[in-house]
Amino acid sequence: MTWPSHGSNPHYLYEAAGLALPGCLLDFSANINPLGPPAVLQKRWGDMFHGIETYPDPHTASLKAKIAQREGIGPERILIGNGGAEIISLIGRMLAGKKVMIVEPAFSEYEKACQVNNCDVSYYQLSDGWEIHLHDLIEKIQGMGAVFLCNPNNPTGMYYKTNIILPLLKACKRENCLLIVDEAFYDFTAEYEPLVPFLQEFPQLILMRSLTKIFSIPGLRLGYLMADRGLVEKLTAYQSHWNVNSVAIQAGEWCLEDEDHISKTTQFIQSERDVLFGFYQEQHFEVSNSAINFYLLRDSQLNDQYPLFQFLLKQGIVPRHTFNFPGLEGRWLRFAIRTSDENRKLMEAMKAWRRLNPSFL
Amino acid sequence: MTWPSHGSNPHYLYEAAGLALPGCLLDFSANINPLGPPAVLQKRWGDMFHGIETYPDPHTASLKAKIAQREGIGPERILIGNGGAEIISLIGRMLAGKKVMIVEPAFSEYEKACQVNNCDVSYYQLSDGWEIHLHDLIEKIQGMGAVFLCNPNNPTGMYYKTNIILPLLKACKRENCLLIVDEAFYDFTAEYEPLVPFLQEFPQLILMRSLTKIFSIPGLRLGYLMADRGLVEKLTAYQSHWNVNSVAIQAGEWCLEDEDHISKTTQFIQSERDVLFGFYQEQHFEVSNSAINFYLLRDSQLNDQYPLFQFLLKQGIVPRHTFNFPGLEGRWLRFAIRTSDENRKLMEAMKAWRRLNPSFL
Repeated sequence: MTWPSHGSNPHYLYEAAGLALPGCLLDFSANINPLGPPAVLQKRWGDMFHGIETYPDPHTASLKAKIAQREGIGPERILIGNGGAEIISLIGRMLAGKKVMIVEPAFSEYEKACQVNNCDVSYYQLSDGWEIHLHDLIEKIQGMGAVFLCNPNNPTGMYYKTNIILPLLKACKRENCLLIVDEAFYDFTAEYEPLVPFLQEFPQLILMRSLTKIFSIPGLRLGYLMADRGLVEKLTAYQSHWNVNSVAIQAGEWCLEDEDHISKTTQFIQSERDVLFGFYQEQHFEVSNSAINFYLLRDSQLNDQYPLFQFLLKQGIVPRHTFNFPGLEGRWLRFAIRTSDENRKLMEAMKAWRRLNPSFL
Repeated sequence: MTWPSHGSNPHYLYEAAGLALPGCLLDFSANINPLGPPAVLQKRWGDMFHGIETYPDPHTASLKAKIAQREGIGPERILIGNGGAEIISLIGRMLAGKKVMIVEPAFSEYEKACQVNNCDVSYYQLSDGWEIHLHDLIEKIQGMGAVFLCNPNNPTGMYYKTNIILPLLKACKRENCLLIVDEAFYDFTAEYEPLVPFLQEFPQLILMRSLTKIFSIPGLRLGYLMADRGLVEKLTAYQSHWNVNSVAIQAGEWCLEDEDHISKTTQFIQSERDVLFGFYQEQHFEVSNSAINFYLLRDSQLNDQYPLFQFLLKQGIVPRHTFNFPGLEGRWLRFAIRTSDENRKLMEAMKAWRRLNPSFL
């Protein structure tokens, strides 16, 4: 059986599982803001039409300027990507043939981009609980050209604060090793501590961001990177011309003006997570200590969660499998936090599962 | 002075020329269908909004199926790109370090993609008139890994028929050299002779296509490639995940259903070209023998066309400079065929230039 490498597009998942596609699906497999895009997008959607008739600005100057101002850095430190996935590909090219370490479990595109570019990839495997043991990790950095760290982490939702990142960054500086921090989900947690202020002192630091999760525009493809100017120039040279489409550029500019949408989202996610996690505790499901909009879950009476996975799929509830996350390999399922209504439906299904499979804890 | 490497986004051009940006611009620098996008796009634009909230299909299966059916080939022979520019980048990567020949003048991205990938690039330079001398060209193919041919040619608009392409293809097969034919503008000429039937016999043949020119959607980024299955697999491995946005995928599917829009465009372009070329002959301007929606022009009394270029820019008429086209280097200007109204305004401006600079022919 070949499982799809990512969430979303659930018909591929049903095909792989050999199950009929139900008429109605609740998709918990993609980690997108359940509040949807900022209102301005729907309101001004019609205005975007004429933008499709001209080439996008190949230098994405206005969007870069907006991000630069928001983050308090120069635009020459910013690269705009056709989604975070393009940025990961570019970094992979830059690291071609180098020794690279990935803190696992993590978004699977890092490994893919490294393998396509014949990197010598090793792994620092976090075990269940997913705490980073700094001493161990720093020891393993020796001789590495780059370390990938997904923070907040996908798939666990764990968020590592500056007390972890800064010592790691210092160790990377000593080793002249790049520290690539993927912050695709940073704006889903109120606890976030900005790393941008460290860019100046640590030219080894690369920050990746995504605009598609928080603003619910994954269809448009839009992400950015912040790093040392020289690194940005190197990565830009690998990009194809006009790599970001004009709808994404315009949408990005409008979305970034809606700070309110972000704070509403953060609050909503936290309150839904509290409800969900309270329920899971009561029903004896185990969850990861997520700070953001998705979490890992398992029925600890099962090692392989496939029976639960299949039970949910049959009802049209789509979790994200974890077969391709090293260290998880199906022992957990990942769920996005969706709307209150969808989360309730998920809890009902979980309750039904628990009735059929009582806990002996 | 650094000139922008492509047409469109004219503010970069005015900046480079040190000229103030006029309030009103007529942009002849981008080769986009003057009839605009098919009506279905504007009509159904609102329906596309919800597509932005889900990830695009990473395999672009439905668009591939549509193109496969239209071209009479299997979908495994098709790769969908984030614009033709992405496809050129992918090919460049595949050719890394190889000996590559570019038939010049040509779209400048081939050279850029080859240089980024440290190819050993040589050139077959067409001289004014831009006819291909098969014997010469075939001789120079020896030892090459790939040949880039832009057909119909950008920037000249010249179209080389099967009597030229087939012998070239046979020579490439003997040399085991890839023949990369960029057909970005093929659907602007009624004279087009399909090369798809040769894909089966010649695994060396790569055809590139664009949907952004004929359907006037350059802002969305969409192109495709047709080739041997093994080549398609190789190039796909270099692509980043979700490389094509969902608006482009949906627009592409709808556009491809409007064959009528293509035939109307072809007729319109031909009739406007006849009017323009008649005028230019009368006014003693020299033009390239274009079969499509743009052409080269020069006042043969000037070697460097910069005075004419500047004269037009000052009036808000934007030609494409040719400084970065090897073999042209400013001795010609390129103009898109635009709407009848815009073409009339261009002719008026040319008439004004001729009054100030009478011809002695």
